[in-house]
Amino acid sequence: MANLQDVATAAGVSKATVSRYLNGSLELPERTASLIDAAIRTLNYTPNPHARRLSLGRSDTIALIVPDISSPFFAALVGAVEAEASDMGLALALYATLNSPERELSYLDLVRTGHADGLIFVTNHAGTDRLAQKINHLPRCVVVDEDVVGTTAPKIFCDNRRGGWLAGRHLAQQGHRHVLFVGGVDEMVSGARRFEGFSAGIAEVSGPDHAIDRISGLYTVSAGRAAGQAFVAQDPASRPTAIFATSDELLIGLYEVLAEAGIPIPQEVSVVGFDDVGPLHLFAPAVTAVRQPVRDLGQHALKLLLATDNADPANHPSEVLLDVTLIERNSVAPPVRPFHRNPNSEE
Amino acid sequence: MANLQDVATAAGVSKATVSRYLNGSLELPERTASLIDAAIRTLNYTPNPHARRLSLGRSDTIALIVPDISSPFFAALVGAVEAEASDMGLALALYATLNSPERELSYLDLVRTGHADGLIFVTNHAGTDRLAQKINHLPRCVVVDEDVVGTTAPKIFCDNRRGGWLAGRHLAQQGHRHVLFVGGVDEMVSGARRFEGFSAGIAEVSGPDHAIDRISGLYTVSAGRAAGQAFVAQDPASRPTAIFATSDELLIGLYEVLAEAGIPIPQEVSVVGFDDVGPLHLFAPAVTAVRQPVRDLGQHALKLLLATDNADPANHPSEVLLDVTLIERNSVAPPVRPFHRNPNSEE
Repeated sequence: MANLQDVATAAGVSKATVSRYLNGSLELPERTASLIDAAIRTLNYTPNPHARRLSLGRSDTIALIVPDISSPFFAALVGAVEAEASDMGLALALYATLNSPERELSYLDLVRTGHADGLIFVTNHAGTDRLAQKINHLPRCVVVDEDVVGTTAPKIFCDNRRGGWLAGRHLAQQGHRHVLFVGGVDEMVSGARRFEGFSAGIAEVSGPDHAIDRISGLYTVSAGRAAGQAFVAQDPASRPTAIFATSDELLIGLYEVLAEAGIPIPQEVSVVGFDDVGPLHLFAPAVTAVRQPVRDLGQHALKLLLATDNADPANHPSEVLLDVTLIERNSVAPPVRPFHRNPNSEE
Repeated sequence: MANLQDVATAAGVSKATVSRYLNGSLELPERTASLIDAAIRTLNYTPNPHARRLSLGRSDTIALIVPDISSPFFAALVGAVEAEASDMGLALALYATLNSPERELSYLDLVRTGHADGLIFVTNHAGTDRLAQKINHLPRCVVVDEDVVGTTAPKIFCDNRRGGWLAGRHLAQQGHRHVLFVGGVDEMVSGARRFEGFSAGIAEVSGPDHAIDRISGLYTVSAGRAAGQAFVAQDPASRPTAIFATSDELLIGLYEVLAEAGIPIPQEVSVVGFDDVGPLHLFAPAVTAVRQPVRDLGQHALKLLLATDNADPANHPSEVLLDVTLIERNSVAPPVRPFHRNPNSEE
């Protein structure tokens, strides 16, 4: 394998010149730079990790795997990790899996065999044994936002249970007793906890006299549209009076369908969102939502990663929960009609 | 430097086992996998690029550098490239620069010295000679969305001039003669072309009897807020009757300030946006905007990159323009008052 001296010889310059050119501390004439670049390509020269670090000053490279960068929540999470990495002088290599298990495994291989000093891993499905096994083989990793059951890495989530509880209590306090929960499947920790908290929040205010319908699926715009269409198809006299859409993307799909169907929010149905990363404050009407601390999530993830050594699991907390808040805007009002228990209700 | 045999010997398994484990074609017992992983770490073993390709099936790795992944436009662009890469069986390594020239240079070094087979480069500022020089040294690169003056790489932009023209003509047809352009500085190709098209579109309808104010800056929410505040501070009797906010983020900042000031859109002021990637259809009121073909931009970028060899510049077109469309919604109406040329107008 070619070394720095080979490149220098081929380019007809000194080793120090190549080194300083590569670490960005030397500006060269166009022609000299081209000669060095050509030598690097011809010899297939790869600087060792130490040299690569030098090229970014004092820094290392961290990897971040996320499901879908075009989702507002993950885009904001990536932005927060990038800002924190930049402050710390670290480089950040990002990989988007499109939430495909196969692509997750491929990127985990890329990260493991690459030069990254650690991985922040984010998925948006329930995980598999194979995924957990690959993550457990990484020397340094944290799992963020959604759990991968079976992993021993430290984890950071927002307090999903409390988020659900805040939404449920708020709707119940406004008088809602028949509500629709739209969100992740029970196998996803976020979905299970949000639903559990939501149920508890409603029950705390209303006692047993309430009913919760549930539509489970992915946190996508199309799943939000499907839930909205199912709601619109129901008899207006007996359908839920409020909907808890547990991601920004679910909410966008739901809002689209309600607008198309001419069902006014909150006059005909109240809506509470979750994430509050997209510009929900500008929507018609502005959305009441549980806000995830996405910036904190990104910052904490990076700090926890740098403090982590998976070989010493006793040395780190197994799960960090970040607090959430309810942002009240204009999408919730008292119910359009009183609650009469429907004998066919799922509750 | 350690090779595959060294790893196999240290882990006490065959070379074929290590190879199949690394390329994902073999599931191993936890203990065996751990032994191999430990050997890889201890020996600091790095598979050669060919082996890495195998680990992703038939694929190579492409790099994509973008300014800010938390902006809706760039998030959508990344999502489109990722989807296209996934369809082609390619891995995609992403780097977000936070639009910092220093970070751009660092990531360009990382990409050049890494294993990526090509780079899609996106910036959101006017570029520098040093940036152009580094890009020109890459064997395979395309420049997307915003020009970097001085680069010889093939380029793909949306048709910014036509986008501006569509917005200008639409506002002029509605009767607007005094309008505010909020957008990129003239040194940014996108800003210069959008402004040029906007001016031409208005002049085509109204002739010389019009005035265009201009506020230049970055395409950020805070720049949109600043422009909104400057607008709000003007005398309502003589300020522009319409605003062209030339990015989703500028529009979000502008909408926030107009809502806070209680200035109704479009009754008091008409607004046209640009990008139309965020959920502008759900805003209050829904935003009339020039839509960038962001998915096409991502797909074309990757295809052009794969067809590109910078060593043979005659072999590729120097600039591809993708068409844009005007999406009419509810944020434009005829002007609140007729136009009287203000002797102090900038025009």
